[in-house]
Amino acid sequence: MDDTKNPWTVLKGATVYENEWIRVDHHEVLDPSGGAGKYGTVHFKQEAVGVVPIDENGNVVLVGQYRFPLQAYSWEIPEGGGSHSVPALGSAQRELREECGLSAKRWMEILSMDLSNSVTDERSTTFLAWDLSEVPAQPDETEKLQVARIPFWEGVDRAKRGDLRDSITVAALLRVALMALQGELPEQIARAIGR
Amino acid sequence: MDDTKNPWTVLKGATVYENEWIRVDHHEVLDPSGGAGKYGTVHFKQEAVGVVPIDENGNVVLVGQYRFPLQAYSWEIPEGGGSHSVPALGSAQRELREECGLSAKRWMEILSMDLSNSVTDERSTTFLAWDLSEVPAQPDETEKLQVARIPFWEGVDRAKRGDLRDSITVAALLRVALMALQGELPEQIARAIGR
Repeated sequence: MDDTKNPWTVLKGATVYENEWIRVDHHEVLDPSGGAGKYGTVHFKQEAVGVVPIDENGNVVLVGQYRFPLQAYSWEIPEGGGSHSVPALGSAQRELREECGLSAKRWMEILSMDLSNSVTDERSTTFLAWDLSEVPAQPDETEKLQVARIPFWEGVDRAKRGDLRDSITVAALLRVALMALQGELPEQIARAIGR
Repeated sequence: MDDTKNPWTVLKGATVYENEWIRVDHHEVLDPSGGAGKYGTVHFKQEAVGVVPIDENGNVVLVGQYRFPLQAYSWEIPEGGGSHSVPALGSAQRELREECGLSAKRWMEILSMDLSNSVTDERSTTFLAWDLSEVPAQPDETEKLQVARIPFWEGVDRAKRGDLRDSITVAALLRVALMALQGELPEQIARAIGR
């Protein structure tokens, strides 16, 4: 018996809501125990991408914006959505340019996650970006952003104490901090952030 | 001018789907630039909780299950949903007992995140748990779980390379790893996991 195969049986499924970004489906199911149940899922039409941009002074670049679903203001690494059909790196480069007016010569993929797997299929890919230079910003006209630079280790401390709360941001900053302490960072970044 | 106040105007809102766990609302909005737009949000009725259980041999306890929204099998730390009206710790203790048949004498809150804030308001709280002892497992009858113990640092390596992909799991393992390297772990755990 293969314990990793799908134990759910879908009896009936229907799309109950759809917009440009998500599709919500309701399913009548038999759960793994064989009992009748319901399962609502949220399909994300785009992949999430995140960027940890580190400048030559060891700062991380953060973006501040009001998150409508949370009804709260949130400081995060530059993030956005990209088509599943193009490489995540291209989407990440676009977000860094659009949100921060920055391009980076050096990129490294550092993390890949499923963000909320009890209900959604949203996936994220996160990159470390360095050797930054300024380019004209092209903010999405629906966004209203602030951009700030803070020392990298201050960002890590804020993630640790729940002051930065976005999951992609928290995981990415912890990942880069661990890379620093395990000697896995490119020399240029290790020198800039210190420790 | 307060840059952190809500720049979205809701013209009209309606619930388009609801079940025991989520509520999906469609909003006709004016976006931050003043343009007409749409925003679909997913409200989570429960708070997510996660537990990093570390045993006396330095293993982390993981749970394997098929995640229906992803259509994929996933190994994760013990997780579940709890009522917003009860302390997250109680929900975490219940999940550890139900999913793994374990209780822990020592608990420490280590992380608080918003999981997918472009669409949802789902929040998570994660705990470190140690000084474990076995109790009768009480698995939710709709779940079909496997439980495994792996060396803590192997779990961290699997998170780093995207083999463990769940965001709560990835962030929590990176957090505990960073605590280890920064000397912030309780002595009992630090000794058990080594390094």
